Parts: sequence; structure tokens; C-alpha cells
Amino acid sequence: MMSDQTTSPGGGPTAALAWEALLDLGAGSGSRVVRLEHAIREAVRSGRVGVGAAIPPSRQLAETLGVSRWVVTEAYGQLVAEGFLEARTGSATRVSAAAAARHGTGMAGGTARAGRGGPGGSREERAADGRPARAVPPARQPPPARPRFDLAPGVPDLRHVPRDAWLRATREVLGSSSGTTSNDDLGAPAPGGHPTARAVVAGHLRRARVVAAPDDAVVLVHGATDGMGRVATALAAAGHTHVLVEDPSWPVLRDVAARAGLTPVPVPIDADGVDTTALVAASGRTGARAALLTPAHQFPTGTALTPERREAVVAWAREVDGLVVEDDYDAEFRYDRRPVAALQGLDPDRVLLLGSISKTVSPAFGIGWMVVPTRWREALARAAGPTAGPSVVEQLTFERFVASGAYDRHLRAARRRYRSRRDAVLAALARHLPAATVHGLAAGMHAVLDLGDDAPDAAQVAREAAARDVAVVDLRRYQATPDARSTTLVLGYGNLADARVDDAVRRLADAVRAAGAA
Amino acid sequence: MMSDQTTSPGGGPTAALAWEALLDLGAGSGSRVVRLEHAIREAVRSGRVGVGAAIPPSRQLAETLGVSRWVVTEAYGQLVAEGFLEARTGSATRVSAAAAARHGTGMAGGTARAGRGGPGGSREERAADGRPARAVPPARQPPPARPRFDLAPGVPDLRHVPRDAWLRATREVLGSSSGTTSNDDLGAPAPGGHPTARAVVAGHLRRARVVAAPDDAVVLVHGATDGMGRVATALAAAGHTHVLVEDPSWPVLRDVAARAGLTPVPVPIDADGVDTTALVAASGRTGARAALLTPAHQFPTGTALTPERREAVVAWAREVDGLVVEDDYDAEFRYDRRPVAALQGLDPDRVLLLGSISKTVSPAFGIGWMVVPTRWREALARAAGPTAGPSVVEQLTFERFVASGAYDRHLRAARRRYRSRRDAVLAALARHLPAATVHGLAAGMHAVLDLGDDAPDAAQVAREAAARDVAVVDLRRYQATPDARSTTLVLGYGNLADARVDDAVRRLADAVRAAGAA
Repeated sequence: MMSDQTTSPGGGPTAALAWEALLDLGAGSGSRVVRLEHAIREAVRSGRVGVGAAIPPSRQLAETLGVSRWVVTEAYGQLVAEGFLEARTGSATRVSAAAAARHGTGMAGGTARAGRGGPGGSREERAADGRPARAVPPARQPPPARPRFDLAPGVPDLRHVPRDAWLRATREVLGSSSGTTSNDDLGAPAPGGHPTARAVVAGHLRRARVVAAPDDAVVLVHGATDGMGRVATALAAAGHTHVLVEDPSWPVLRDVAARAGLTPVPVPIDADGVDTTALVAASGRTGARAALLTPAHQFPTGTALTPERREAVVAWAREVDGLVVEDDYDAEFRYDRRPVAALQGLDPDRVLLLGSISKTVSPAFGIGWMVVPTRWREALARAAGPTAGPSVVEQLTFERFVASGAYDRHLRAARRRYRSRRDAVLAALARHLPAATVHGLAAGMHAVLDLGDDAPDAAQVAREAAARDVAVVDLRRYQATPDARSTTLVLGYGNLADARVDDAVRRLADAVRAAGAA
Repeated sequence: MMSDQTTSPGGGPTAALAWEALLDLGAGSGSRVVRLEHAIREAVRSGRVGVGAAIPPSRQLAETLGVSRWVVTEAYGQLVAEGFLEARTGSATRVSAAAAARHGTGMAGGTARAGRGGPGGSREERAADGRPARAVPPARQPPPARPRFDLAPGVPDLRHVPRDAWLRATREVLGSSSGTTSNDDLGAPAPGGHPTARAVVAGHLRRARVVAAPDDAVVLVHGATDGMGRVATALAAAGHTHVLVEDPSWPVLRDVAARAGLTPVPVPIDADGVDTTALVAASGRTGARAALLTPAHQFPTGTALTPERREAVVAWAREVDGLVVEDDYDAEFRYDRRPVAALQGLDPDRVLLLGSISKTVSPAFGIGWMVVPTRWREALARAAGPTAGPSVVEQLTFERFVASGAYDRHLRAARRRYRSRRDAVLAALARHLPAATVHGLAAGMHAVLDLGDDAPDAAQVAREAAARDVAVVDLRRYQATPDARSTTLVLGYGNLADARVDDAVRRLADAVRAAGAA
């Protein structure tokens, strides 16, 4: 239960007003939900709010901050799911002890100067509090653990990261006897990436994604977010002011565009993918000549853009002298037929493809790529400035990983694994949530779950699920303007252990019932 | 010889005018030299200028573009050194065949659409020219090789990159039997870096650099350039409009600040480091409240800031409520006494330290750090947005590399190696260039070589050296406003093979003589 349902020592309008002073939502980037989460974390981290402090009821804080109540409940829900706040039935939601530990409260303050040392100072190592510090911390600090029943979309199977294959590739790159890397390779990275790595990635994309591009059209980046940051900067420098985005869509890339000064213009999605008639109309209305799309597998609805609409998108881009940014995030995992080819192949002059291995392998390797139309290469190089892509060692390791066939083997094994898990999820949903409808299961590692019109609100369901150690996301998280009411969840199964599928869905069904009873 | 000394088929004012149309120096970032280099490369890459084309004499192009002749000769000299242009005695300087090969000229053009494939297209892989492409490129493509006699500053010894130790650390991180990394570690990276890696880097900095900071003040970044980009963005967002920079200094970080909208204000250097009286005056004149400094080992002059000036810098920062950004790039390598402690320890609230392993190990690993004052943490997190630091695998590998003692061992071995090479360089200079004066040899891996007032111009010497496969840099490369005449070279010995020291300095002496005779 959240504090909304209770009155608590820390609750009431006064508390909400006191919090208002603590929370600076500012005009920064990110959705309001994300900014509120950040502001709450920061208030705790800085020591302005202590462990055990009750947080105000969502309705009151929403009123005080002038945001919708949904924004507040979403932020609270996320922080409860992370263990940062604790929600207990019949009591206020409070700042957890774990939150303070994680954020080093009490360390961050004014004691840092105690360890002061100048040219003539002591060279004995001192920690910030003045005590001599150890050379090596006593124990490995784990990152916040993921929930036991991980139904959050966008996370691949972290149990099956190809550690050994990556290690073998690193050995091929660095091994002093067997290594293929020259000393000169270990100098400053070349702009755009090491030529060998670019060539191998280009070859993979031509084969696997029907991308039409020469090797040097490929630019290696840290990931899709890094790539979108550069693209948005180049667009803004070229005079673009707006970018069309799918609604719903992955908010991070929208935010990156907004940070670069582009105004995102939402375009609705239907069963055939993005509504191209609405896209053309929005372009005419706003002057937007760039669009950020997920043609092969729309996120999060899971549709593939129809051939007619693919042609319509490309025709629009030519007509307005525009650019389509294709976020090609997980199209390799298609279960009913071969993966839908990248839109880029339809018009390499008008489509810039973004991809990475964050969803197909792991976000822990920091490898992504752009396939850049000739006319945008110079502008993108200028936008990147001295920003480097992945480290040379990572680039060359990925090159070995792909060239040895390990990447293809991993993709095939992952596709089989996700397909069978998808079938298990479907069966479990039929058992435990027979009234719900499932969409978008033909590809990827997530599905859209419509709980039905009479179901409780999805935000409440997500919170009840979090209390049961199940991570699941309300569709509104991905909407440009969240619906007033939602009964739709986005349910990822990429990082869900096979043995836990039935238990996870059963707990989710419990959460739906509990939310309905609340 | 450069085309300046000759008339050539491609020379003459007409050719210079034709080139003007090709070269867009724009108002982009980077020095004019860098922008001109870029524009020439781009003209070749795009096919607007072909292989073997003669480039106009520098004097004429300078006049046509309205820049100083030094800008043009510097850009030409750099491109000759890179093998992009070919300078032959008695003939015009021309675009080399290697330039075209490296930049994929002829591939980048309009043929990309030949490989077009849509949903119904062929799935056979095709290269951009329509021929079926191979899965794996036939041969490893080397990056442009470094010159044989590498006297360029800022490059560490690439023959002694600790490959095996790094590989061992990677095995400790990823090995499926021995690995210390949990599956959850391989999920999305934590903002600021993995807590364990931050703690180990903080411990190292407290010990080795007398930094005064708790673990969570450390933020892991890709390198000093990445860090400076974030700092400059945060400064601009906080209302800063100017940043004081040392003159001369490393131009990349100045450029990064300028890209973020800050105007760099040069402050002169003398034998005691940056002139703090001039710094305070420049701050008063421009309102600048931020300064980018290299207190431990000024780049490129090699001085250490005196204790009195260290205090003066910190006092200034407190007085104006400002921030000192300390670029701590190679202070570990000090030969006469213990390394000068970081300025950060003097006032952790007013000094933000930037560091990386690019100069101490290799730029191929993409690891750097910031030590952030408490008051700037939130602003920097906001400035970074969703930008991630090094990949989790790299962070944890570096953590193992440091915690195992391999980093300290490497630093000790490198310090011995550079010290003995420095002595060999000094001896060779005494033999071959007895009239020259050497400065800044107490630390680091470069020195400043004053050829004397009667010596030929340093730009000409650098070009003659490049023709002899020797890379060396004119001091003006690092000046905010280049002197009209310079006889000073910056001479790095980090990546110079020990066996080549004498030969390199002899060739440099030859270059000085040839430049004098020209």
C-alpha cells in the first residue's frame, strides 16, 4: 500500500509543502516522473531527508508541485520497486535504510576537506573522514539487485551473456603471443571507429539486417542513446527544430532529442505501426523533417510497419528533404518468420540506422553503431567533435566476436531461448490471467498485456507487483501524454528465469486482484 | 618540400580560388588549423578532389581563405605527416593515393543504393557496389601507422601496454568459473559508474595523488575529453560564459569548452606555471569564474605550479565562488622527486579533478574519471543526462587491474622506462643539437626544445622532420593566438623506441639544418 491510502506522521499538506521546497523539478531534461524520482533521490542523498522519513501522500504532493497525481504515484512506485522507499500496509511510505546506504548519505557532506594534502602534506593515504584508508575495499559492492521476477522490458537474459566467447575474443585481441592487435592499434582511436571493426559490423548488418551501406558508412558508438545524441545535435545544427516520435515509444531517445533542442512531436501508433497519414500531417503542422521510428518492431506495441507504410515513410522523407532515424533495437528476435529487414535498405540516403548489442547481448559492453547516409557524415562528425566511440579494445573485441561467428551463434541461441520462454509466458497468462489479451508476441522479448476495461489501473497493478518482487511497467511510462486511465502493462521476459515464469505470472495475477480490491 | 616553394600545375591563384569553394571552414569548433585539415580531408573523401590533385601554395590559399599563412602550412604539414598529402622536392604537394584508400573515396558516393533490399528483397548479402560481399573481410585493416620516429607529445609507450595484465583482469571479471561478476552486474550501467570501480579508483587517487574525496565523489568517464565536455555543459547551464585557460595548453579541452558555449580566455604561463596575477585580472575583466589548469605538470611547458600560486588559485576560486578544473594528465611520471600532489586536495569544494589512463597506460581502454565537488554533483549528473561512462566490463576490468596492484606496477615500470629514455634524449640532443635549450624535463614524457633565436621557423622544421619520418610539434599548435614566429618545438618521447632515440634526434637535427637552408 502506498501512503495515498493512509494518513501518516509525515503526511498532510504541511509535509507536502515542506517537500516542495526540497524538490527541484526544474526545467531539466527527462519526463516529469524521472525528474521527480531524481529529485527525491537527491533529497535523500544530500541528507536533506533522512532515513525513515515519511513521504507525503501522492495526491497532496501532486497538488503542491502542480503535476498530475499519476506522475507522483509513478515516481513513488518506481522508488518502491527499487527498494529506495518502503511501502507498508497501514503506514506511510518511508525512505528505506537501504536508500541511505546506497547513496552514501553522511559521506557526501562537508567532511571531505579533512583529508587535505598539499605539496608538503602527508602522503599517507587518508579517507575523507581522516582515518587512514585501505588500499582495496574490503568487499565487492553489488549494484542494486534486479527484482527476482524481472518482467521489465528492455533487459536481455543476463544469465546467458556470452562471457566465455567475449573473453576468447579479448584474448585474440590482447594476448601478447596470439594477439592480432598491433602496437599502433593501441594508440588514439580513429574517428568513427577502427576500420576493421567498422567493416565487420557493416558486413553483419548487410547480411542480418539487409542494410545497404559501404563499410565506412558505419560509425561505432557506445549505444543507441549515444548515437541519438549525436544525430539530434547534428539535426539541430542543420536547423531542425522538431522531431516526430512514435507514441508510445522508448522515452530515453525522445529525451536525448529534447536535450539537443529538438521538440518531440508525438505520432500515434496503430496495428500497422506508426500512422503515416498522421506523421505527414504532423510534419506539415510543425515543419518537422526528421522522425525517430522503430519500423521492424515497434516499441512497445510490438507491431511491424507494413510495406505500404515503409514506402510512405521513405517517400515523406524524400519529399521534405528529411531524415528517418531507425532505432533497430531487437529485430533479430523474430519468431514467426525471418526478421523484418531494416528500413535503411529501402533508402540509404534518407534513413540513418541506430543499433547496439544492449538488447541482444548485454548493456555491459557499451557497443553500438550508426549507419550514416553520405550527406550526413560530415555533420555527424562535426556533432561528435572529439567524442570517441567505444574503446579500441572493445571495438576490436567485438570485431573478433562477430568475425568468429560467436555473435551469430549467440543470436540463434537467444532466439530459441526467448521463443520457448515466450510460449511459457503465454501459457502461464492463459492459466492465471485468462481475461487479459496479449499483443506483440511475434518478435522481441516483451509483450503488451491488456488487462481489460474493468481491470484496475495499471499503475496500481505495477505497484502491487513491485510489492511482490515482480517488475512490470504501466504502458503510460512510454506515452508522450499519459492516458488518464490505463489497464495495459508492458511485460518483458528477456531476463525472467525460465523456472520462474509460472510463479511470476501467478504473482502478477495476485497483484491484479489486490489492485482491484484496493 | 611543400608546394610553397614551387609553382605547379595545380598551383596559382586560380587554383586557390577553386579550392576556396571546396573548403568550408565554417564557424564550427576546433582551431582554424584543425578545421582546415578537416575540410581538406572531407574534400578528398567526398570525391570533390581526386588522388594526385595538386594543392595550392599555402600563401595563396591563406590569402583566399583570409587566414594566416601559418594556419595553412600547419594544416598541410599535419596532412603530410599523416601521409594524406605527399610533398616532393621540386613538385607540388599532392593528394596521396593512401588518402583515397583510407577514406574510401569512390565507395562513399551514390552507389550505396545498389545493395538495396526491402522486405521482399534478396537476403543474400551484397556489398554497396552490388557484388556479393564476404562474411569476414579478407585482411585486417591497420589504422594509419604512427611515424617511425614518434616525437609527438601525449602518446604513451605503445610497445609496453600491459596487455597480459589487462587480459588477466578481464578473465577475473568475465570468466564463467573464476569470474567475480554477478549476472546483475551485466545489466544497465549505474550512473557515475559501478560502486566497486569508483571505490577502487578513489582509493588509488587518495594514495597516489593525495586527492581528498569520498568514494562517491568519483565519476567514471571515457577520458578527460568526455569529462571536460560534461563539466563545460554543467558550467554553461549554471550561467558561466567564460573559462580561463592556460596559454599554451592542450587545445582539445579548450575546444570542448568552446563547443559547450564557454569562451576560453587565455592566461599566460611563466616559469612558475600559470600567472595567477594575470588569471585574477582576466577573471575580473571577463567575469570568468572557472579555470582549466594543469597544476602538477603544465602542458606543454612542463612547469609545476608553485605552492604560493596553488594557494592563490584556490583563494581566487573561493573569492569568486568559482571552480578550478584540474587536468591531471600525467603527473605520476616525475623524475626528480615525488609527484606533485593534486591541487584537488587543497580544496575539494573548489577543485574538480579530471584524469584518465590515456597518457599513463594507453588511450585504447577508454577509462577516465572526475573527482567532483559535492556542490557540482547534481549539476554534472544533469549535464551527463543518459550519457553512460565506460562500459561495465571495462570499469570492472580496470577495477581488477588497480586492485591487483597491476596498475601501480605498470606506473613504476613506465616511470623507470621514461626516465632512462629522457636521459638518452638529453644526451642525443647534446650531441646533435648542442645549440638548443631543453625545458620541462623533470616530469612526464615530453620536453620543450628551444632551437634559439637564429633557428629556422619551427613549423618549417616540423615539416622537414615529417619528410624524414619524424613526428614533432611546433609550440604554436598549443597557443591560443599563435606567435608570428616560433623556434620552439614540443618533443614527446613516450612512444619513441629506445633503439631509435639517437637516430630520431639526428634526423631532427638534419631537419633543423634543412629548414635553415630552405
